[in-house]
Amino acid sequence: MTAEIVSVGTELLLGQIVDTHAPTMARILADCGIGCRRRQTVGDNLDRLVEALDVALARADLVVTIGGLGPTQDDLTREGIAAALGEDLALDPDYEKTLREIFALRRFTWVESNIRQAMRPPSGRFLENPNGTAPGLLCEKGGKIVIALPGPRNEFNPMAEGVVREYLERVQGGKVIHSRTLRVCGLGESLVEEKVRHLMQGDNPSVAPYAHPAEVHLRLTASAGSVAEAEKLLDPMEAQIRQLLGNAIYGINDQTLESAVIDQLREANQSISLAESLTGGWLGMRLTSVPGASDVFRGGVISYTSDAKKELLGVSEETLRQFGPVSEVCAREMAIGCRERLDATIGVSLTGNAGPTSDTDGKPVGLVFLGIAQPNQVQVWDYRFRGSREDIRQRSTQIALVKLRECLLEVDPTS
Amino acid sequence: MTAEIVSVGTELLLGQIVDTHAPTMARILADCGIGCRRRQTVGDNLDRLVEALDVALARADLVVTIGGLGPTQDDLTREGIAAALGEDLALDPDYEKTLREIFALRRFTWVESNIRQAMRPPSGRFLENPNGTAPGLLCEKGGKIVIALPGPRNEFNPMAEGVVREYLERVQGGKVIHSRTLRVCGLGESLVEEKVRHLMQGDNPSVAPYAHPAEVHLRLTASAGSVAEAEKLLDPMEAQIRQLLGNAIYGINDQTLESAVIDQLREANQSISLAESLTGGWLGMRLTSVPGASDVFRGGVISYTSDAKKELLGVSEETLRQFGPVSEVCAREMAIGCRERLDATIGVSLTGNAGPTSDTDGKPVGLVFLGIAQPNQVQVWDYRFRGSREDIRQRSTQIALVKLRECLLEVDPTS
Repeated sequence: MTAEIVSVGTELLLGQIVDTHAPTMARILADCGIGCRRRQTVGDNLDRLVEALDVALARADLVVTIGGLGPTQDDLTREGIAAALGEDLALDPDYEKTLREIFALRRFTWVESNIRQAMRPPSGRFLENPNGTAPGLLCEKGGKIVIALPGPRNEFNPMAEGVVREYLERVQGGKVIHSRTLRVCGLGESLVEEKVRHLMQGDNPSVAPYAHPAEVHLRLTASAGSVAEAEKLLDPMEAQIRQLLGNAIYGINDQTLESAVIDQLREANQSISLAESLTGGWLGMRLTSVPGASDVFRGGVISYTSDAKKELLGVSEETLRQFGPVSEVCAREMAIGCRERLDATIGVSLTGNAGPTSDTDGKPVGLVFLGIAQPNQVQVWDYRFRGSREDIRQRSTQIALVKLRECLLEVDPTS
Repeated sequence: MTAEIVSVGTELLLGQIVDTHAPTMARILADCGIGCRRRQTVGDNLDRLVEALDVALARADLVVTIGGLGPTQDDLTREGIAAALGEDLALDPDYEKTLREIFALRRFTWVESNIRQAMRPPSGRFLENPNGTAPGLLCEKGGKIVIALPGPRNEFNPMAEGVVREYLERVQGGKVIHSRTLRVCGLGESLVEEKVRHLMQGDNPSVAPYAHPAEVHLRLTASAGSVAEAEKLLDPMEAQIRQLLGNAIYGINDQTLESAVIDQLREANQSISLAESLTGGWLGMRLTSVPGASDVFRGGVISYTSDAKKELLGVSEETLRQFGPVSEVCAREMAIGCRERLDATIGVSLTGNAGPTSDTDGKPVGLVFLGIAQPNQVQVWDYRFRGSREDIRQRSTQIALVKLRECLLEVDPTS
């Protein structure tokens, strides 16, 4: 079975709102093993809506519309579906009664335009909307299915996840599409693809790479009769990829790099503290986004000034004068300083020039030093990042986590 | 001129990511007075991509594609556009040279698939991508325009807002739809709407409110022959709204609350330091996102543990024992401590329970204390935020900026 989603609303075409419903619907379709090949978005315009529905019904078995079911004049989805199915809208007297009762119960003022919400194509039936007055629609005709859902989030979500998911599972009778994501850091997208290319020819399970800032995600997808069967198809594929990429895979599905690092620290009985200059607290914010970070995170210093570097981290006057705050020596002393003063086993420092304007003390925009102080060694790396101030700060934060992870892979947890 | 947006990526059809680029592009089109009537979304499938482009080119003057320009096998947008324009892709030797240089400079491993990024339809030209290796495309042929932009956020946004916006403004030459956003904090959406409702009836200029976390943005839009004419229509509307909302308007257009606060600090000759517990550096990250923050930002302490609060901020043992780290007294001592130790005129502290699991020392999830220490007074406010760990941390950061702004409005810059 194939599906197509049609989102309806002029505000979508003006970019005034982001369409989060279509992805929700797409995930439900995927979970039910229904292939969604296309999405369309049209405004509150009857001709273009009917055209979109005609095209969608010609090439898909199931069409799901989102939005345009309210009582106002620009809510045209009911009319559009009726036209696409070659029918005329008719009043459903039972639902008119229900609707009038809802209005009376809530002491809302009844205006005549509300009657539109009780109209439906004769071949269809209403889907109950527990959080609103506009019901959904389900039409089965000529081997095609049309489902219409309302746009407000508190109405759409319960209906999509409830009555629609149940209906689709029943129609599909058992077939699922199930995905697993392997998250990779420290290797570029093209290099990752080169290593796994021979596995990307397969159809079931399939493998596809997606690039993220300083990360690559490999999505493995299998179609099967049940989630358990799909998992069985994915397991050997994951094992093969792990052989090819090894430690570069840091996590699975929704696991973030920061949570992987927190886990590593916990397992290795290590603790961490930070000294952040150009990132201003971003690395701390990422680490503390992980519930339970307090098991291993001792705190940090946002050492934005030379005084803060001296007073709170013990960076020497001499170092600042001779090498400046953006230097390997300063990064080294910052890492040692925060490790000692916050009583952690590992200290991490970031200092650099995030821009946007110009060189500072002869240090170009994008030059960043990362320091990691461990019990037996202190390492410092330097980078030249490009892009905006935000990009440079984001990449600095990301590379700190990547390098921290590499260092922790070398720590013997039994020592 | 009419336009159509085609978003490309199987991950969009699987609902794994939300398409925020299409709304950005739609806003740019609207700003340039170009009507966007439809959007399409297709997966990484050449046949369906070409079909979508054929349809789009038949009914719109301008087609903008988003995504599918990377180096891997499933990046098919270049091929799709060439096919839709009836051309064969050809290697651009100049760009191949540039590409190889970029790889050498960054010490990335060159793999042969990267060459794909130097291929283009002969009728098109490349659009420079300052943050990535895959350039964009611009093709003008037979009265139609095709623009192709890459999918990664840090690549898409600068290109869309930069080279593409400039090109479209030039092509449109004359009719503009121009917007100005007034950014409001400290008042809820319904209250803001109530105050400006009588202004929302107008058509040109128009006013529309948009809710954001702890902020409301009022978008004023005018249609005119030039940006200057549109500005003249917007000025009196802005003046009326300023009379109604006064100081609640903190900024205009893209100005962030953090940059407004940095400006206030600079104008009032004040400096700031932070003591962050539950936010872990988030407030510091926001303040230092502003270029020139170093004029007023002295630094901070991420005091995630009681030891850090004692050692680096001077919070007393007695306070921690008697009231705990999540308390009014602790927030007060943290604010005083960071103000003094980092030699700032203002110290700001945040301590609370971000969850997600349970009460800590009898302090419920969502309980947050904000402290602001100024030369003559120390104030502490308490909040009960709802939502996820991220929500609670985000709202804490936001309320700190809102309150800081209010305190600074009371500071006499001449004192």
